[in-house]
Amino acid sequence: MQSITLQESMLGYSYLVQKAMDELLPANYSESKIVEAMRYSALSHGKRIRPFLLMASANIFGFPSGKTIAVACALEFVHVYSLIHDDLPAMDNDDFRRGKLSNHKKFDEATAILAGDALLTYAFEILSKPEAHPNPEIRCETIRILASSAGYKGMVGGQMIDIENINNQISKEQIVNIHRLKTGELFMASAECGAVLGGATSEERKAIRYYAHDLGLVFQIKDDILDHKEGLITNPIDEFSHKKPKENTSIVDIIGLEKSYQQLDFIKEQAKEHIRIFGERARLLVDLVDFVVNRTK
Amino acid sequence: MQSITLQESMLGYSYLVQKAMDELLPANYSESKIVEAMRYSALSHGKRIRPFLLMASANIFGFPSGKTIAVACALEFVHVYSLIHDDLPAMDNDDFRRGKLSNHKKFDEATAILAGDALLTYAFEILSKPEAHPNPEIRCETIRILASSAGYKGMVGGQMIDIENINNQISKEQIVNIHRLKTGELFMASAECGAVLGGATSEERKAIRYYAHDLGLVFQIKDDILDHKEGLITNPIDEFSHKKPKENTSIVDIIGLEKSYQQLDFIKEQAKEHIRIFGERARLLVDLVDFVVNRTK
Repeated sequence: MQSITLQESMLGYSYLVQKAMDELLPANYSESKIVEAMRYSALSHGKRIRPFLLMASANIFGFPSGKTIAVACALEFVHVYSLIHDDLPAMDNDDFRRGKLSNHKKFDEATAILAGDALLTYAFEILSKPEAHPNPEIRCETIRILASSAGYKGMVGGQMIDIENINNQISKEQIVNIHRLKTGELFMASAECGAVLGGATSEERKAIRYYAHDLGLVFQIKDDILDHKEGLITNPIDEFSHKKPKENTSIVDIIGLEKSYQQLDFIKEQAKEHIRIFGERARLLVDLVDFVVNRTK
Repeated sequence: MQSITLQESMLGYSYLVQKAMDELLPANYSESKIVEAMRYSALSHGKRIRPFLLMASANIFGFPSGKTIAVACALEFVHVYSLIHDDLPAMDNDDFRRGKLSNHKKFDEATAILAGDALLTYAFEILSKPEAHPNPEIRCETIRILASSAGYKGMVGGQMIDIENINNQISKEQIVNIHRLKTGELFMASAECGAVLGGATSEERKAIRYYAHDLGLVFQIKDDILDHKEGLITNPIDEFSHKKPKENTSIVDIIGLEKSYQQLDFIKEQAKEHIRIFGERARLLVDLVDFVVNRTK
């Protein structure tokens, strides 16, 4: 029954975030096609895990879900911007995203670059306004956390390292580091922003960051396993494999499927351990780890 | 003598901003080449007009120059990010910038996209910290102003309209609108941020925005005149002109050189008129208009 509760909760919250993002991006904007391109990617249905992570983290401290929506939209806009730019021909060169044409395929490269830029910029505008939180000190703190996680030391840095190593043999440690930066940093920022909105102590913030760090890793290992199973990566060391030219080595490539499952299980438990201090109040976060591990797509 | 004073003042301030940007971008960063790429464009010498505009505007209200440096760096980082992305092959396709290879030519496209993303993100991180201003309400306000000016309704929107019209015949009004968005918005944000740091009233902020709006226009018309004189644009309506494929029509193309000079003169006086209310306290801003009009490169 617990997983039904979580899925209902995710669905309900994702509906609210979707509605808010729709309102934040005026459909009738006619000055240029920029908003159309922003809407195309932002409103295409994703799992909205980062918004949920924010909300579930804020909930631990009794902060109401409804008041997390603006910050949730900002986090999701930053995530979507990173997907648009990562898909570009100069980067991962992906033609599809979430079952639809990627932004530069639907529009063109210039539009995709600008739509990404605009979503990133808009995220900080949203966070700067009282709708995000009435206390400006807290708004500044969420901006600092998000910018630091998304910047050269975080997500963008991870994408840079990833691209620099496209044709290199890399170690498991290097892959884990890239995952931590590319995925983990924004997970950590989402969870920590929730804690900040809820007025957490620095110890509590730290526990939640550790949890989100592990959740990001679990998410990525599961992604690699699903990709592997889909046969996208048929033979890790075969030069004639069906890998796309710009796809990097995955964890499964290096440690194999069985050990990947073991890792998944180990980190899953470790993630839950970090938030044990919150007891039943962290129920959503505990269930979220299971959801990420058990998902089939 | 006045113009010497202004140039000395600009030089001195630009030195401080350069030093601060150098410190904000750690030269010994070795995780990836991202910081090297950020430094390459950010530290290449520009006129630093936006930082100066911020400082001169803050000075009207007695706010000390030394305390504007962090915000100045953030503004310049946003300007530099926009140059890096605008130069990309998918955009204006420029191989050179400030007399050096453009970022994607020095590095590659992926690196240039990421260096731009990272500079934009870093700008907001800088603005969120107490170094920008001790009052978080004021920090949030500068973030809101900058994000709104740089986003889809502002600078990015201008670049989108510009690109959408590359092969179109456009009117003088449309060019002025594109200039207002691509250049004017960040000028207005810089000047208004200075006013906000200095604790200006909303009336004073408005006057300074109007001034910066006109300064941006003067800057752009002068740019067009200089480009025209350099012979980059030899014959405005000639299909066989030497224009690069992705260069758009300029104001001089449409109204001619003589009328462009008249416009320049008219808007210059209008800009000064807006800040007459501040009297001698706005001396740097008055001199700045003259500097922009009289510059030869």
